[in-house]
Amino acid sequence: MNTPLTVGVVGATGAVGKEIIGCLNKSSLYVDKLRIFGSHRSAGTICDAGKFGGIEVEMFDIEKSRECDVVFLAVSGDFSLQNAKKISDGCDGAVVIDNSSAFRYDNSVPLVIPEINAKCAKSSKLISNPNCTTAIALMALWPLHKMFKLKNIIMSTYQAASGAGEPGMDELQNGTREVVSGLKQVAENKIFVHPLPFNVIPHIDCFQENGYTKEEMKVTWETRKICGLGDDFPVSCTAVRIPTYRAHSESIVVQTELPVDINKARQVLDDAPGVKVVDDITKNMYPMPLTATGQYDVEVGRIRKSLVFGDNGLEFFVAGDQLLRGAALNAVLVAESMARNGSLNAKCANK
Amino acid sequence: MNTPLTVGVVGATGAVGKEIIGCLNKSSLYVDKLRIFGSHRSAGTICDAGKFGGIEVEMFDIEKSRECDVVFLAVSGDFSLQNAKKISDGCDGAVVIDNSSAFRYDNSVPLVIPEINAKCAKSSKLISNPNCTTAIALMALWPLHKMFKLKNIIMSTYQAASGAGEPGMDELQNGTREVVSGLKQVAENKIFVHPLPFNVIPHIDCFQENGYTKEEMKVTWETRKICGLGDDFPVSCTAVRIPTYRAHSESIVVQTELPVDINKARQVLDDAPGVKVVDDITKNMYPMPLTATGQYDVEVGRIRKSLVFGDNGLEFFVAGDQLLRGAALNAVLVAESMARNGSLNAKCANK
Repeated sequence: MNTPLTVGVVGATGAVGKEIIGCLNKSSLYVDKLRIFGSHRSAGTICDAGKFGGIEVEMFDIEKSRECDVVFLAVSGDFSLQNAKKISDGCDGAVVIDNSSAFRYDNSVPLVIPEINAKCAKSSKLISNPNCTTAIALMALWPLHKMFKLKNIIMSTYQAASGAGEPGMDELQNGTREVVSGLKQVAENKIFVHPLPFNVIPHIDCFQENGYTKEEMKVTWETRKICGLGDDFPVSCTAVRIPTYRAHSESIVVQTELPVDINKARQVLDDAPGVKVVDDITKNMYPMPLTATGQYDVEVGRIRKSLVFGDNGLEFFVAGDQLLRGAALNAVLVAESMARNGSLNAKCANK
Repeated sequence: MNTPLTVGVVGATGAVGKEIIGCLNKSSLYVDKLRIFGSHRSAGTICDAGKFGGIEVEMFDIEKSRECDVVFLAVSGDFSLQNAKKISDGCDGAVVIDNSSAFRYDNSVPLVIPEINAKCAKSSKLISNPNCTTAIALMALWPLHKMFKLKNIIMSTYQAASGAGEPGMDELQNGTREVVSGLKQVAENKIFVHPLPFNVIPHIDCFQENGYTKEEMKVTWETRKICGLGDDFPVSCTAVRIPTYRAHSESIVVQTELPVDINKARQVLDDAPGVKVVDDITKNMYPMPLTATGQYDVEVGRIRKSLVFGDNGLEFFVAGDQLLRGAALNAVLVAESMARNGSLNAKCANK
């Protein structure tokens, strides 16, 4: 971790970009120089980057971004599709960690949660960061899979406004204010398909031919890819937007090949990195957005035997910060794991 | 339906009681006289009962309530336990329709959703009204069961503040106002176990030994009893309180004995009484609290083949008004069905 790195962030003023800067502030990465790239609108402005000081935003440019050792993309899928490979191509390119869904289903691009498949990132210059819902769920599902061998996964989500970035959080806040002050009966909506304040919207991302949304299919596709479960592994998700700010919750039911011992399940989760077991019903402690917000660890609780699958099933509830584990933190942890195994140092050695 | 009835309501100032008065205003029951009973605090006050005019609240009294043909109890389980049988006992007693959970699991007391098991109410003077979550879910589950034979049910809920009555709704509104106005970082809570504004609480009613809450077990127990499914039928629920006012949503996955044809499933739901299929993803139409609130019908949508159970599985989403189908409306519909089959008329004939 001691090689000095030049780190670039594209999209640092968005919800995820801001959190990437925050995570870099606490990271073990040796950030020698932080460069922030933006559009012509933000170029020239000063971005408060915490311990890195005020940094002038540079107009994004392929060549300039290639000068970095690692570049975090916290921008749209279209931008990533257009630029990610140009930034990372060749031995002189930067390692790119992309937050969008642009390359997640490209077999040549690893999709990485470091606690699960860090090794997949090793020889790649372009790495995809998973969908937030998947990343949060897998922190609990992976250790359970290793111990009890999962047979299928059924999930219903309670997703925060932050999944739609700052504009989503602003729309929830402003709309809620208008409704509770009596200004409006029903809030206006531009970002979400319907008004979100005091409502529930079972629709995130666009609908697919099979009746599932793309958000729901992302959970299926990405779970299979990250955990190496094969293309037929049964995962089903109902993805629902609810009026919370930035932590996603998920109600998860799994059927297992091996019989489940609840105490062993709790223990394996307790031992898992990135997981905090919050499961003391005698003290009314369980995962909630209120407590998971701002935390690196995903809270896991309500752990109990499934009334449907009996000894071979488990039900539980998770809550995780969508912007951290669901985005920025995972991206920075990918970079840290690559720094540890030398994958960020190749270019530095040639400089 | 043409026999004039004296109808009593106990607890008319609560959230459910108010809706019972509202439903009676629109009911086909021939309400000759409406009597409203309350505690010593409300006795003597005038209750606005719509087309029935302003009605003076009478101090509750067993003998006076027995003068009614039918009495709706919208009060606590303790009150019901203490009084329901005293009101209904003997051929001179009133038929009692109880909204609490006091008698739901008593084998001698029918638990009724008229669209499913109206006949169970026929010869009983005391009828239990189901839990709101169960009542809403079963409007969709029962027709699907009749067509495809359900093998198991997995459910995650999105439950509104109204489940905790007016005080619950007030706490959500006041707390939300304090948070969005910047007065407080986190809202205060007295009614809910944790602050509800912008939060999610996976805990409704008290925890049982098996790690499920009583609210979750109510769904299991009541589904089995109402549908006559037997004591081992697998039903599993995760019950979650979210910051909405009065319509519950539910994400439901079922495994079926018979293969599911999605079009047939949609058709059987479309034909089912009390159900409104809201399922046009090309127009972003699906069940939501925003549209289900104030409606008698339960909205059902997001109907799709289960990615876990394949041809023998179905996933869907429902939203129903917790105070109407989940409480008041069901109770009034029970009375209507009893009036139709003559069960409310027995006493009238002897008067």
